[in-house]
Amino acid sequence: MKAGPSQEEVRQHNLGALLRHVHFEGPTSRAVLAAELGLNRSTILGLVGDLAAAGLVREELPQETGRAGRPSLVVRPESGRAHVLAVDLGVERLAAALIGLGGVFLDRRERQWPSGQSREPSQVASLIAEFAHQMLARAPDGGACVGVAVAVRGLVRHPDGRVALAPNAGWQDVDLAGALTERLPSDLPVLVANEANLGALAEHRRGIGRGSQNLVYLHGEIGIGAGVISGGELLRGERGYAGEIGHMTVNPFQGRPCGCGARGCLEAEAGERALLEAAGRDGLAAGAEAVRSVVAAADLGDVTARAALHRVGDWLGIGIANLAHLFDPDLVVLGGTLRDVFLGSAAQVRSRINTNALAAVREKLRLRVSELGGDTVLIGAAELAFAELLARPLETLARHGRG
Amino acid sequence: MKAGPSQEEVRQHNLGALLRHVHFEGPTSRAVLAAELGLNRSTILGLVGDLAAAGLVREELPQETGRAGRPSLVVRPESGRAHVLAVDLGVERLAAALIGLGGVFLDRRERQWPSGQSREPSQVASLIAEFAHQMLARAPDGGACVGVAVAVRGLVRHPDGRVALAPNAGWQDVDLAGALTERLPSDLPVLVANEANLGALAEHRRGIGRGSQNLVYLHGEIGIGAGVISGGELLRGERGYAGEIGHMTVNPFQGRPCGCGARGCLEAEAGERALLEAAGRDGLAAGAEAVRSVVAAADLGDVTARAALHRVGDWLGIGIANLAHLFDPDLVVLGGTLRDVFLGSAAQVRSRINTNALAAVREKLRLRVSELGGDTVLIGAAELAFAELLARPLETLARHGRG
Repeated sequence: MKAGPSQEEVRQHNLGALLRHVHFEGPTSRAVLAAELGLNRSTILGLVGDLAAAGLVREELPQETGRAGRPSLVVRPESGRAHVLAVDLGVERLAAALIGLGGVFLDRRERQWPSGQSREPSQVASLIAEFAHQMLARAPDGGACVGVAVAVRGLVRHPDGRVALAPNAGWQDVDLAGALTERLPSDLPVLVANEANLGALAEHRRGIGRGSQNLVYLHGEIGIGAGVISGGELLRGERGYAGEIGHMTVNPFQGRPCGCGARGCLEAEAGERALLEAAGRDGLAAGAEAVRSVVAAADLGDVTARAALHRVGDWLGIGIANLAHLFDPDLVVLGGTLRDVFLGSAAQVRSRINTNALAAVREKLRLRVSELGGDTVLIGAAELAFAELLARPLETLARHGRG
Repeated sequence: MKAGPSQEEVRQHNLGALLRHVHFEGPTSRAVLAAELGLNRSTILGLVGDLAAAGLVREELPQETGRAGRPSLVVRPESGRAHVLAVDLGVERLAAALIGLGGVFLDRRERQWPSGQSREPSQVASLIAEFAHQMLARAPDGGACVGVAVAVRGLVRHPDGRVALAPNAGWQDVDLAGALTERLPSDLPVLVANEANLGALAEHRRGIGRGSQNLVYLHGEIGIGAGVISGGELLRGERGYAGEIGHMTVNPFQGRPCGCGARGCLEAEAGERALLEAAGRDGLAAGAEAVRSVVAAADLGDVTARAALHRVGDWLGIGIANLAHLFDPDLVVLGGTLRDVFLGSAAQVRSRINTNALAAVREKLRLRVSELGGDTVLIGAAELAFAELLARPLETLARHGRG
């Protein structure tokens, strides 16, 4: 029921729209920007001038035109001027990257979690801060860090980022953002979000989901999480917990026990432990490497590994059929270890979807694996951290831009 | 990536915002409108003037103020000036209503489907048109009908309203809107939508879900459908099929066969037939009356009826727990026959949710029955038909307003 925006709000909106366009689409001519944004050329000229004066974009000759004649200038994002710190708290490792405007990786580091060591929130925050200080010290001259975002496997409350539950880390009601804010430069906003939600954002903006307005990203890594883009927006729900597909019950009475205390949750039937147990490898190994070795063994004809993938693929198909009925996506993207599991069980997954989903619901559903090379979640975290700059470029830069 | 709106768009937006406010909230003083819409009083004065000149609102003394002194005028919607035709194609009956601005029922009619008679789309369209002509002929003088919306049990494609699948009517890929447009006055836009989506809209705008931005409406009537409001908006998905919870698989291998061909769909386990069979009444009766009689028998201590409700309540709890994980609503509203089923099995439903849902996900979840007296779907259809008027009041009225 809010009233319409003021002229100044319209200008801020337009600055953001232009910066978003070049951030996601790359160098673009002013003529194309005018057409895409539905603005006249003199308005575009003014907006580009304002963003260029702030150092956020630059006009230059395109790298190649493939056409005769004088090429038009293109507007490109300045990756050195504004960057963000993206952090991914994986089950096996901590990864962090400094990512510049336009999605350019300026720096990337990771380390395995020291095995056996506890993951107290304060210790984790200190580790992240260590990475952050190393990377910020080597950031481009004149660049400003405009935000930090951390991906957590668990239920993360929106908008305050409180971690309600992160089973692998053993966290319950943890203020990771607060612990991190204390350890980082005071002007840096710290956001915390669920890993699958960030994965959905990444696939929608920079991955195989570009162009899809309704997609589900499924992330496997011990558990199974989902991030849902619906009508072009991330689905959050009341507190930010939407997409907790891992605990969707699919086999309530005869199902395998789940870590959550219930029985027959999707991740109990189709998660890492179910696969390794069915493949007779339980207790021998765990983690992404162990999952990949089952898929590799099945490829080489190992009958037990094949049967395990068949079984897990069946449950994965049931899970995806349910998602199709509930969210009506046109695309499901599989990432994390589910990428490998799906590549090893695609026929079974599809066959189960054909059995369990209404024809109208499944007929245009595409299943794809992530192509972001394992950095899906990190890229999504960067996009979350950039959101404020992309909404209000000049204001946000003024708050952070020491360059 | 669209650019900001023009001044004229802002004015249209503000006219719509004001009309929406009084449509949903009822008579409101100009001072409150200014505060609620974030506009200054002179802008409000201008907007009220424009809407009053078109006959859509009227300023008058409030009915009672409870305060001494001269009362402020209130702006109220004119239910006689603009109305819509809402139609609900139920499993057992056709209901239709003429509903005025502000949500006032001006006329309401219904009839049972003639038993045994086929439901050819053209025959159904003719029946609706018959009701429509009767009601439009008796509509208030000077009033304009601005739209028609029809609720269908099935998959309805958005935005064109094509019925992809309506199992009870035996329809597949049916252009009901087209058949109806041919039989109605030529300037009347006809919209067709899924019944549970419309129910969600009604509960969100006029029912127990007022104030909730994230709710799920569950509608029972032979099958089970869901409508989801997420972030204050109806969740549609890629083609409008989101919320097909009836065919979410919850018992894939030992489950009851479902009409869709699969096994263990939620509606096969928790729908009307499952309840009636478990209560030993299968073949004896069907429909809402039969469901109510099981609940009534259980209330009187009938052991078989109690066991049947216990069983169905268990599955309903599993279904709601799944919805809670996937959509993170703060409210689930049960309507249609699920209203009665829930009233007869609430303890079992809640107990199952406690077993199957993560504490963080369930702890603030409220379960409520619809209080819209069986007209939930009809009210939702009216709101869908009003949407265009509420978005662009003067333009829309000019197109339809013969009065």
